[in-house]
Amino acid sequence: MNTANETSMQTLTSYIEANREEFLTGLKEFLRIESISTLPQYAAQISKAAEFVAHELRTIGMRNVQLLQTVSEQSNPFVYADWLDAPGKPTLLIYGHYDVQPADPPDQWTTPPFEPDVRNDSIYARGAADDKGQTYLLLKAVQSFLATQGRLPINIKFLIEGEEEIGSIHIANFVREFPQHVEADAVLICDTEMFAPGLPTITTGLRGLVYTEVECRAARQDLHSGGYGGAAANPFQALAEIITGLKDRNGKVNIANFYERVAPPSAEELDAWKRLPFDEQEFLEKQIGGTALVGESGYCVLHRIWARPTLEVHGMPGGFAGDGAKTIIPAVAKAKISMRLVPDMQPDEIIASMKASVNELTPPGITTEIRILSASRGMVVTTENRFVKMAAQALEEVFATQPVYVRCGGSIPVAAIISEQLGIPVVMVGFGLPDDNTHAPNEKLNLSNFYRGIETMARYFDKLGA
Amino acid sequence: MNTANETSMQTLTSYIEANREEFLTGLKEFLRIESISTLPQYAAQISKAAEFVAHELRTIGMRNVQLLQTVSEQSNPFVYADWLDAPGKPTLLIYGHYDVQPADPPDQWTTPPFEPDVRNDSIYARGAADDKGQTYLLLKAVQSFLATQGRLPINIKFLIEGEEEIGSIHIANFVREFPQHVEADAVLICDTEMFAPGLPTITTGLRGLVYTEVECRAARQDLHSGGYGGAAANPFQALAEIITGLKDRNGKVNIANFYERVAPPSAEELDAWKRLPFDEQEFLEKQIGGTALVGESGYCVLHRIWARPTLEVHGMPGGFAGDGAKTIIPAVAKAKISMRLVPDMQPDEIIASMKASVNELTPPGITTEIRILSASRGMVVTTENRFVKMAAQALEEVFATQPVYVRCGGSIPVAAIISEQLGIPVVMVGFGLPDDNTHAPNEKLNLSNFYRGIETMARYFDKLGA
Repeated sequence: MNTANETSMQTLTSYIEANREEFLTGLKEFLRIESISTLPQYAAQISKAAEFVAHELRTIGMRNVQLLQTVSEQSNPFVYADWLDAPGKPTLLIYGHYDVQPADPPDQWTTPPFEPDVRNDSIYARGAADDKGQTYLLLKAVQSFLATQGRLPINIKFLIEGEEEIGSIHIANFVREFPQHVEADAVLICDTEMFAPGLPTITTGLRGLVYTEVECRAARQDLHSGGYGGAAANPFQALAEIITGLKDRNGKVNIANFYERVAPPSAEELDAWKRLPFDEQEFLEKQIGGTALVGESGYCVLHRIWARPTLEVHGMPGGFAGDGAKTIIPAVAKAKISMRLVPDMQPDEIIASMKASVNELTPPGITTEIRILSASRGMVVTTENRFVKMAAQALEEVFATQPVYVRCGGSIPVAAIISEQLGIPVVMVGFGLPDDNTHAPNEKLNLSNFYRGIETMARYFDKLGA
Repeated sequence: MNTANETSMQTLTSYIEANREEFLTGLKEFLRIESISTLPQYAAQISKAAEFVAHELRTIGMRNVQLLQTVSEQSNPFVYADWLDAPGKPTLLIYGHYDVQPADPPDQWTTPPFEPDVRNDSIYARGAADDKGQTYLLLKAVQSFLATQGRLPINIKFLIEGEEEIGSIHIANFVREFPQHVEADAVLICDTEMFAPGLPTITTGLRGLVYTEVECRAARQDLHSGGYGGAAANPFQALAEIITGLKDRNGKVNIANFYERVAPPSAEELDAWKRLPFDEQEFLEKQIGGTALVGESGYCVLHRIWARPTLEVHGMPGGFAGDGAKTIIPAVAKAKISMRLVPDMQPDEIIASMKASVNELTPPGITTEIRILSASRGMVVTTENRFVKMAAQALEEVFATQPVYVRCGGSIPVAAIISEQLGIPVVMVGFGLPDDNTHAPNEKLNLSNFYRGIETMARYFDKLGA
């Protein structure tokens, strides 16, 4: 590293230091937008969040800022921007998302989900970690460069979408329809977490997700359980049979060929996981707060949540869900059931098998319909390329610790789609923490990590341009 | 029957005929009150309905009209009234209820549930048949007597409650606290239905009801299913296991000793049921509108719904029940599960057995809590007394057909409580029809039955006083 470069990095670090309050104010503004993508009534807030990101990109000096929609099927706006004035230098595609999960149950939030509150060196709000805070720190890293040096050391394209929380349902179309907007040498995704506080982390694998809604219908309409109980089929009873048929008490999924294509992690990867600072009992007590860990026997917890597929029920709407007693046999009941997939499971095959199993498990008197809400495959990335190695160096400089390599049990469909369709390296670096409550009440982002994330990303761009 | 009596009955019939419109107007007013007892936000409407009944009772000439609450535990008002000026004549306690079931799903109603609409000779509204229409026709029968003759042929006490749809949870206390208000020679309950149009019906048995809410708790709060799926217990999966453990695919309830005390119907009763105009295929197609009948093998449908116990799931609140996809492992999920009991099953024993089964079925990582929302036993009544025989005669006179004797799969807890605590005959005559959609959208009451019900009841009082 030459001296001129060190000096310019110091200027940049000072800029970040000097603008902490301003960055926080901007983040709060972003977090106030209720951009919940899965609930149709928030459509206006989705647009508002897209406009916010576009405005920020313009303000910091990015060029060619556009809100794009896929034409094959109308999507939420993709926010695109680029800065391509570094000839001969690599082009980095930076992905993030401005949409968030719903905030229910609202009464479990200490402060309201869309009124960001700073306490204990963290900012609490829906989307703080997933992914507004992490999207915003990327913008601020770019801003710091452009503000202090008037240019970027590499070419950068931003692609910030608004459908990640509903399965990135149009990203594949986007990549097909706008190939020039995603052409790059590598893609950077900042939507994961650190394995532990102070421990910088690079994520090397994600699980995929098939999200379904299984609807069971019985009678023409709700029936009085007194007059019909004992003769009329009950769709909740049917769903209970289907659910227990799909997954047994030991966590084994009983869908035909479900595990057939599961690629086990390498011995080296498993060894690395064993060296991580992780205690299963502590995970149960501190992170889950439950009475027992569950799941397939013969696999450690990290193996189960990172590299084994699962099936989970998220909700069972229908019938009478109010307070008190209503004695109906409901006409219809649904179960929201998702499956997490690992490499090399194929979503299409799993969907077909799952449908066959549900049909087979459907008892007499019930008709079943299965809707697929989203489908994405799992992925693993190689760490043997300079885009990952430079990220590791930047992390080590800022955090003064060697980063660890982990997988993530969650899904970022775009990672698999981009890596498959573009055939370029995927770099997943995240600054969330395991207790950030993503998708749950009291989501937060640690503010030290937010600022260190900005510096890490700035150093990363610098290294890639060296 | 003497001539004077026939003349007075003719006067009375003419009065009913002349006041059809006025009776209908009054019924509509009653039906407009949203007296849903299970939803706390309707408390004011419960009071309004009680006041309406009290006002009606005063207007028609009943005496000693009072709104009473149990003192041991605050109840919805019991409306009491009496007319005891027939010395030497029997005293009939008339029971009805002014509370109704919730009206959801509201979008399945052709006309709004609390805006009564007359079409096809029926009045459509929540509570039309269950039980406002049938309570109101009793008042109108008494009114017709008092208006045309200035007196009643027997002593009558009205007890109209507002908690039938939540299991008549205070009626036992009421009977204990106000013994003089319920002292009578027989109790008349008009809250059942006719077996078929034009076929007058006396009900000789009811099923009891134990209504429970089973709550499963897992983690401290909702978890991201990506980060925890495969290691954290899922309360919906637990409930599915509990539900399938409680009742198998063949409709058999697997709670210890569940069937132990079940008293089979007599051979004579079973024979009578076989002679009823009932076709199982037609029941499936017309009343259920489903694809198959279910339930225990070896029992005909009428036996299953009238004289066999069952277990049904009514709703499964918790987790994410909105549109779209949310990937959480919920911290808590509930199942509303009820059991219909038949003689001689004991609610306390069944509750204890059910709790033991649920605890046994609860998988690791889950803690379960069971709340009992109501509990009542099933009952059968003897037809060998003059109160039932006179009812049969009155029905035959008005409908020109011999009444049939059936059971009802539903529950009227008060019937068992009163018959047990007072040891007096219970007479259950109803004017609803099997397709009245009680507890479902588009509840209705046939208006011919409403008017014939008034005349039948007037003739019944007359016969008891003869």
